[in-house]
Amino acid sequence: MPYIDIGNELPGIVGLLRFRPETGQRLSALAETLLREPNTLSPGERELIAAYVSSLNDCKFCSASHSAFAAAQLPNGTDLVSAVCTDPEQAPVSAKMKALLHIAGRVQQSGRSVTEADVAAARAAGASDVEIHDAVLIAAAFCMYNRYVDGLGTFAPDDSEGYASTAEVIVSHGYMAVLQ
Amino acid sequence: MPYIDIGNELPGIVGLLRFRPETGQRLSALAETLLREPNTLSPGERELIAAYVSSLNDCKFCSASHSAFAAAQLPNGTDLVSAVCTDPEQAPVSAKMKALLHIAGRVQQSGRSVTEADVAAARAAGASDVEIHDAVLIAAAFCMYNRYVDGLGTFAPDDSEGYASTAEVIVSHGYMAVLQ
Repeated sequence: MPYIDIGNELPGIVGLLRFRPETGQRLSALAETLLREPNTLSPGERELIAAYVSSLNDCKFCSASHSAFAAAQLPNGTDLVSAVCTDPEQAPVSAKMKALLHIAGRVQQSGRSVTEADVAAARAAGASDVEIHDAVLIAAAFCMYNRYVDGLGTFAPDDSEGYASTAEVIVSHGYMAVLQ
Repeated sequence: MPYIDIGNELPGIVGLLRFRPETGQRLSALAETLLREPNTLSPGERELIAAYVSSLNDCKFCSASHSAFAAAQLPNGTDLVSAVCTDPEQAPVSAKMKALLHIAGRVQQSGRSVTEADVAAARAAGASDVEIHDAVLIAAAFCMYNRYVDGLGTFAPDDSEGYASTAEVIVSHGYMAVLQ
């Protein structure tokens, strides 16, 4: 159970969003913009960055959630997510995605770990400045969501069914639907 | 200059918010809710948490900005912010603020670093569950803002005048005003 009394038994960030709807609305709207609004990176590609950073932060709830959301929106999704979280350099993704995942891994360590050479490599692999911007911000945002979920000691279910059914809600209705 | 072409010469997060208004709106709205909307923690106390986490993350722009915003809203603000960023345990703040700053420092390391004992100590010092929640989320959010600002290599001015004049805008008009 969480370290504070959230007045519900919902797992992970879902319970926190309902406990404090003022911040819940802001956090869900940010996730919707970052991960689902129109973008040259597909929702599945953006969820892959979220899943990778969450796995680096060892956040069980976010890692299972965004792995399920990525898998639901990419061909061979389950295997692909697993390959990316194990070793993005060896995973069957484009050179552009490898370069963006590399930047995301640097951001997970610290903003100051990202170098101009990392950004130049992403650009050489075909990433636009907006894509580089968004990859940095998605990675940074999951350093927030992961700390929020684990810093308050929320519960993360073991079975995969709940994450898969939340994936259906997210894919069909988006992140604002999680608030209701 | 930033690692990407943001089309303006504004420093730190301000340039990024203008470059990508879709995410800029979300990030500013989150800051407004976290740091300025009605709360039993004053805006100055919340800015102190933001300044402390930004200093732990060694983010020059955010550290200077939120130190100025905290100082503008607390008695003896400049000395107080400096004392908190040097050693919150020895700083002249309440036992409750010390406990919340301690939790914020844990969150900066990792969400998993926060213990039930840290939360129990904050509660024993008078913190409500909402205050503990907000301290964790503010600390987590600055692990995002700091990574965003430094991960894209933005510029942080050396002189303190710009930070002080932005503090006047924030105190009078709030975070949404920074978008315009």
